[in-house]
Amino acid sequence: MTLINNETSGVFVIACTPFTDNGAIDVASVDRMVDFYYDKGADGLTILGMMGEAPKLTQAESIDITRQTIARSADKQVVVGVSAPGLAAIGELTKAVMDIGAAGVMVAPPSSLRTDEQIIGYYRNVIETIGTDVPVVLQDFPLSTGVQISSRTLGVILEAHPSIVMLKHEDWPGLQKITDLREAEAKGRRRTSILCGNAGVFLPEEMQRGADGAMTGFAYPEMMVEVCRLCDEGKHDKAQDLFDAYLPLMRYEQQPGLGLAIRKYVLARRGAITSAAQRRPGASLNAKAIAEVERLIERQTRKLDELK
Amino acid sequence: MTLINNETSGVFVIACTPFTDNGAIDVASVDRMVDFYYDKGADGLTILGMMGEAPKLTQAESIDITRQTIARSADKQVVVGVSAPGLAAIGELTKAVMDIGAAGVMVAPPSSLRTDEQIIGYYRNVIETIGTDVPVVLQDFPLSTGVQISSRTLGVILEAHPSIVMLKHEDWPGLQKITDLREAEAKGRRRTSILCGNAGVFLPEEMQRGADGAMTGFAYPEMMVEVCRLCDEGKHDKAQDLFDAYLPLMRYEQQPGLGLAIRKYVLARRGAITSAAQRRPGASLNAKAIAEVERLIERQTRKLDELK
Amino acid sequence: MTLINNETSGVFVIACTPFTDNGAIDVASVDRMVDFYYDKGADGLTILGMMGEAPKLTQAESIDITRQTIARSADKQVVVGVSAPGLAAIGELTKAVMDIGAAGVMVAPPSSLRTDEQIIGYYRNVIETIGTDVPVVLQDFPLSTGVQISSRTLGVILEAHPSIVMLKHEDWPGLQKITDLREAEAKGRRRTSILCGNAGVFLPEEMQRGADGAMTGFAYPEMMVEVCRLCDEGKHDKAQDLFDAYLPLMRYEQQPGLGLAIRKYVLARRGAITSAAQRRPGASLNAKAIAEVERLIERQTRKLDELK
Amino acid sequence: MTLINNETSGVFVIACTPFTDNGAIDVASVDRMVDFYYDKGADGLTILGMMGEAPKLTQAESIDITRQTIARSADKQVVVGVSAPGLAAIGELTKAVMDIGAAGVMVAPPSSLRTDEQIIGYYRNVIETIGTDVPVVLQDFPLSTGVQISSRTLGVILEAHPSIVMLKHEDWPGLQKITDLREAEAKGRRRTSILCGNAGVFLPEEMQRGADGAMTGFAYPEMMVEVCRLCDEGKHDKAQDLFDAYLPLMRYEQQPGLGLAIRKYVLARRGAITSAAQRRPGASLNAKAIAEVERLIERQTRKLDELK
Repeated sequence: MTLINNETSGVFVIACTPFTDNGAIDVASVDRMVDFYYDKGADGLTILGMMGEAPKLTQAESIDITRQTIARSADKQVVVGVSAPGLAAIGELTKAVMDIGAAGVMVAPPSSLRTDEQIIGYYRNVIETIGTDVPVVLQDFPLSTGVQISSRTLGVILEAHPSIVMLKHEDWPGLQKITDLREAEAKGRRRTSILCGNAGVFLPEEMQRGADGAMTGFAYPEMMVEVCRLCDEGKHDKAQDLFDAYLPLMRYEQQPGLGLAIRKYVLARRGAITSAAQRRPGASLNAKAIAEVERLIERQTRKLDELK
Repeated sequence: MTLINNETSGVFVIACTPFTDNGAIDVASVDRMVDFYYDKGADGLTILGMMGEAPKLTQAESIDITRQTIARSADKQVVVGVSAPGLAAIGELTKAVMDIGAAGVMVAPPSSLRTDEQIIGYYRNVIETIGTDVPVVLQDFPLSTGVQISSRTLGVILEAHPSIVMLKHEDWPGLQKITDLREAEAKGRRRTSILCGNAGVFLPEEMQRGADGAMTGFAYPEMMVEVCRLCDEGKHDKAQDLFDAYLPLMRYEQQPGLGLAIRKYVLARRGAITSAAQRRPGASLNAKAIAEVERLIERQTRKLDELK
Repeated sequence: MTLINNETSGVFVIACTPFTDNGAIDVASVDRMVDFYYDKGADGLTILGMMGEAPKLTQAESIDITRQTIARSADKQVVVGVSAPGLAAIGELTKAVMDIGAAGVMVAPPSSLRTDEQIIGYYRNVIETIGTDVPVVLQDFPLSTGVQISSRTLGVILEAHPSIVMLKHEDWPGLQKITDLREAEAKGRRRTSILCGNAGVFLPEEMQRGADGAMTGFAYPEMMVEVCRLCDEGKHDKAQDLFDAYLPLMRYEQQPGLGLAIRKYVLARRGAITSAAQRRPGASLNAKAIAEVERLIERQTRKLDELK
Repeated sequence: MTLINNETSGVFVIACTPFTDNGAIDVASVDRMVDFYYDKGADGLTILGMMGEAPKLTQAESIDITRQTIARSADKQVVVGVSAPGLAAIGELTKAVMDIGAAGVMVAPPSSLRTDEQIIGYYRNVIETIGTDVPVVLQDFPLSTGVQISSRTLGVILEAHPSIVMLKHEDWPGLQKITDLREAEAKGRRRTSILCGNAGVFLPEEMQRGADGAMTGFAYPEMMVEVCRLCDEGKHDKAQDLFDAYLPLMRYEQQPGLGLAIRKYVLARRGAITSAAQRRPGASLNAKAIAEVERLIERQTRKLDELK
């Protein structure tokens, strides 16, 4: 498999991990889900992220899922989340998944970091641990990690470590950060790939600010694929029309804590996975929430018809 | 002025505080803004909230603005935010604003609270400080305060203090909390008014879950007024159509930290206030952000035309 | 009154605020407590700090206590804590207390600050608000504020703002920070006065690292006065002997949340104030805790006798 | 090996993990350190705790160290820390170490927990994951985890899960919590063993409040052993005399972040381990800190001589 680099672009879907109703890994659904994502146009996948229920997996399971996903991905790239409280676990999992053929690893900062020095030091330790030949995605998601990385601090990290080739951008607010990075590059800093998360709810603006694509798990990845394509072609109004049709559901899916239950419900409904179950502990949708999702999907379908 | 009570419903706009470009209170704009909100259909106002730049005001200024707003509000109700790190300040400001004619006060929990006991104890202290005859709005906004109040804890507080007549609901996710409260009431707990915040982005679902209206500051309050009206009439699809037309801008305005700059920019553009300036320290929009807002407004206008 | 400056040294006791059992300010005890502190050798006082129950005071009460304390302090210097969530309140209180004759003001960072940029920006805003002619004590107390300021960031702030003349040092661990500051001064940075807090439990080491004295409220200020004097004379072993005799009680008094109750109990026992009561909400000692304190005092008295 | 139970008492030393200067596990030192702890009177050990640098170990290393420690411990009990962000990792490591012969496992709450419900739910999930036949130590250490567990919430957890046989008590302040637990037991709640952490700095008071011993890693475990013995015999003044002699160093060792470097320095100095090195990232003592430690040890030795 080729490695990701600082020119990588497109849509890397944050994949969920399919379980059966009794909490076992649903091996058949892994293949089906991977096929689904690529059928919808994904350029690659990111597995074992926050939405992949990674902390609920044993190390052996993590490696099994990685192996299966990569095997099913043919020439598509698979990034693997390796965030962990300790460097040893990060190093261990990184080595294992890169040996299997991962295209890179993703590392979010642990929530204990506070000062800029601590954040900068952390990524130095990570790179020393995993080596400079593994492409790294830095996940910048303060809403979840509690760690705020300023554009300046991000710049220090990127300049120190060329192997950090990509930013998973999901600061909120964060549009200016994309602009800051691109302006620094215009002045001479080496390029970094920027794929955006935040459940996709700022994708049109992010693309116009200079992002290279999306890395998030909205249950309709075809929207992200199409919005990115239209933006690349400069058809921003058309991109936004499409985006707007999905926005009500995207907004609903973005709810912290509940988001994965919504996403898995929709993925199961679309046939990508068999069961919406999460391994414990996990949320599930009650009847009221299901009715809300169904209503939003119905309205979304209608609007998409109108757009045609 | 009449006091709010546990049946209060409708749209209470979270008012901003207008400043001149050099940071003085823009007295003329206060009246103009108040008129604007009522012209757009607001049932009442909430001033000196988080979006009212309250911590940047001296005590004298806070009271002046309250007096002016209430004077201009005729028979409309004005709720005043009195959250402060100390009970003395809460007590002092509450007495002052209730004497002037406020309809009630709003209190968010200080971010130092952790256990359920601490949260319950805090509201007991607040009520002891301000007395049981002042109607209180409990602001439940974990994204900003860091304090998570479970439905159970909220129930304990509401049962202990009948003078807490209203919940400013902006937990995220929070739809189930509305359902929990309404179900507890169906089983015998006394009624509480629920007005929803969270920048309005879940208003249709919140109304269907049993909310009584909105209490947030989106720069197009007429949307909230109309959505609430349509929901009250059971016209949920029509409500959602209208909501969807505004959602792209709402979503943009919801960005933490930057949201007030966006809101004030739009309010100034609409003539509600003269200047979008915030008293220092405050964010302002740069050219790129203004272009994004303008584009969203233009698209919003077009969609609203189509809905007619 | 003279102002504090970057050479100020000695012991500034963090004064408590005396209340009667029913929560009123105990005006008579204010004078008695001030006399007590100076009788025990204090070089100055710091009032309205975290241990002064400042958030429970109305603005008028804060100013009354400041006036009374300064009037009773003759030529001794009184620093006033003015930390508040908003710059307006900081500016307002600073002006009021400096007009009355305060020697300077103390400002801790609000707990919302995260990145170095935010911390640096905050102190810039504070200085712009209160003017460059008011001497400022920067309170660096991460255990309480949650804000971690690295030596580098502290250096940036001190270099930008000469009116920040003093550091209330209570980082934990923090001995290296004192060394870092003194080494930077040896290389050319302007001098800053460093008075240490942290309940006094590192005072001997802090003095040897280059601190100028103590700023904390241990109920036996004569210990701090004597330890600082002995350290200034180079009698470090004698200083430590004295310190060790008080350490068991100091350690007990350092308990967060409960510390003030212990301190006020001892101050009342020593006759400095009439009642150990805190204004609500506040902790008080139960019988078991009182027995522990009494036992520690009894042992402390015995050890001090042995030292003579 | 016998399992810990709700009557377990004495001193369980929190063991460090010895590394060579280049970061490899120092296998020889593991045995030497284990012998050292038991020579000094330890009743058992707790390994892979926060001070055991557990997050820096690979899973294989964790199991190797557990195996070696248990093998060397003969009939002494070894508790193993298994805290992890995910239940799968907790379950996996628990099974592995119990199979090897651990006496129980220790679980601290993850820092993301906020409400009482979340905390209660977390321990329910843990027990469901590892089974009800594994004795669990609940580590209650808010200073490090950020999770505050009230006495009431602790009671709910203890009543629901009889397999949680022990509390590692290190809330701060926390003496009242010991009293609360013992009073609830006097009224009928089943007994829980309470061993105290917090670097030992409240050990005499904790024993008098009803604790069963200590579980912390102070580099002079013989102090804890002797203090517990004397307290059990009712010789509280003698216990406190001994405690006081060690307190200045204990206080110094208690510094967060730096504490382990101090502890390992002293353990290496005492011959328990070969190198004070921590696996990266880790702090180390510079010359100034070493001089401070040496001075405290010298004074401590002198005082202990005087006590004889």
